[in-house]
Amino acid sequence: MIRIVLLGAGNVATHLIKAFSASSETEIIMAYNRSKTGLKHLDSTLKTTSDIDTLPEADCYIIAVPDDAVAKLSHSLPFSGKLVVHTSGSVNLQETDAKNRRGVFYPLQTFSKNREVDFSEIPICLEAEDETDYNLLKKMASAISVKQYQIDSAQRKQLHLAAVFVCNFVNYLYHTGYQITAENNISFDILKPLIQETASKIEKATPAEMQTGPAKRNDKKTMEKHLEALTLPEHKEIYTLLSQAIINTYGGKEL
Amino acid sequence: MIRIVLLGAGNVATHLIKAFSASSETEIIMAYNRSKTGLKHLDSTLKTTSDIDTLPEADCYIIAVPDDAVAKLSHSLPFSGKLVVHTSGSVNLQETDAKNRRGVFYPLQTFSKNREVDFSEIPICLEAEDETDYNLLKKMASAISVKQYQIDSAQRKQLHLAAVFVCNFVNYLYHTGYQITAENNISFDILKPLIQETASKIEKATPAEMQTGPAKRNDKKTMEKHLEALTLPEHKEIYTLLSQAIINTYGGKEL
Repeated sequence: MIRIVLLGAGNVATHLIKAFSASSETEIIMAYNRSKTGLKHLDSTLKTTSDIDTLPEADCYIIAVPDDAVAKLSHSLPFSGKLVVHTSGSVNLQETDAKNRRGVFYPLQTFSKNREVDFSEIPICLEAEDETDYNLLKKMASAISVKQYQIDSAQRKQLHLAAVFVCNFVNYLYHTGYQITAENNISFDILKPLIQETASKIEKATPAEMQTGPAKRNDKKTMEKHLEALTLPEHKEIYTLLSQAIINTYGGKEL
Repeated sequence: MIRIVLLGAGNVATHLIKAFSASSETEIIMAYNRSKTGLKHLDSTLKTTSDIDTLPEADCYIIAVPDDAVAKLSHSLPFSGKLVVHTSGSVNLQETDAKNRRGVFYPLQTFSKNREVDFSEIPICLEAEDETDYNLLKKMASAISVKQYQIDSAQRKQLHLAAVFVCNFVNYLYHTGYQITAENNISFDILKPLIQETASKIEKATPAEMQTGPAKRNDKKTMEKHLEALTLPEHKEIYTLLSQAIINTYGGKEL
């Protein structure tokens, strides 16, 4: 049984606690949060503390706090020589305190408070300074997911950046679709099957192979009509920039 | 049994032929295409023609050809007074020839040649000039899908535009994610669960409620790091514009 202390009580921490607790190979022996209030939503059978000096001996300490608080928390730990990993996509391993053995346990997914996630399908990106620690992280990851990847800090930074494009920016484009339909008394539901199919298509082919639309065909007439029909200046800007990027990529020709 | 003639043999036409042929309430009595070669991939039991003067009597003629060819084809039909509909998102009903009774039968989905689609989940947007024709279109739509919507030409134009954002532009963002991972020797597979989850989230909540990421938090430090890490100028431009749009929408505050 791998004994884990979880530091943090936000979305990622809460989802990790649930996943590790459900596995027979791992055990959350303590959850820490600097405020007691933040711990209240956790399962009542879980041992919790808001006193960093009372953390128990564990095989691994997982820091799951906002990106800009990771380094500081790693420095405030009252012990050394132990395996301390963080869950952030954008924090370099080197930024955490070298007094402990450092590592990264980064589950690449978008977590929301009131939404269940199937952890078994979430890719876990792992990094450690030596092989023994890496193997322990690998065991922990395989206890909750079927997908583990060795990703170094430089790669992780790029991966986090790619995630901003395919998750945060994509969601914003969903929002623009929502705005356009709402403005015209059209149900957003009409767009949902298209959204799901667009996401499903890239499971079987590359996004480049799946590109469609007026910009792909360099269909100037349709693009002009679209630009005229858009009412928000922000939508016009996005339309122009992304259409141009698609035209540049495909040279206006069907693949 | 509703008797349908399909004009066109591209992706949309092919998928419609399959769907109507599979229903017991509709029958494709003929498929027309101006070139014989274009008809070859269709089921051999289907009657086909490339001579527009030999089209049989039908309850409905469906024009499913590229947007810029719809009007011309409607003018070239050698009959009048019949129900002729087209399947295009961007062509106004008024653009087709008034010698026939006009309508629109627009299935809102992205169709690819070698990809099966479940038509029953595809929203079909309907428009007609009178109620009798509308009711026939509704029967045809319900024969192949559970989702029918009455959408006029002005709304359809906006819907088609929204579809460009949530499908074509979203797919291009998937492509940027692909480029970033490929450049850094990372498997694009790592991003796929995130892409699926991002699409799934909007089934239960609005995109605005589901927005996350550095721009949503107005986390300037992370955004600066990201901009530095991007190598392609086009990616930088997209990053800047979409981040700013998100900041403008949320005022840099968590909802």
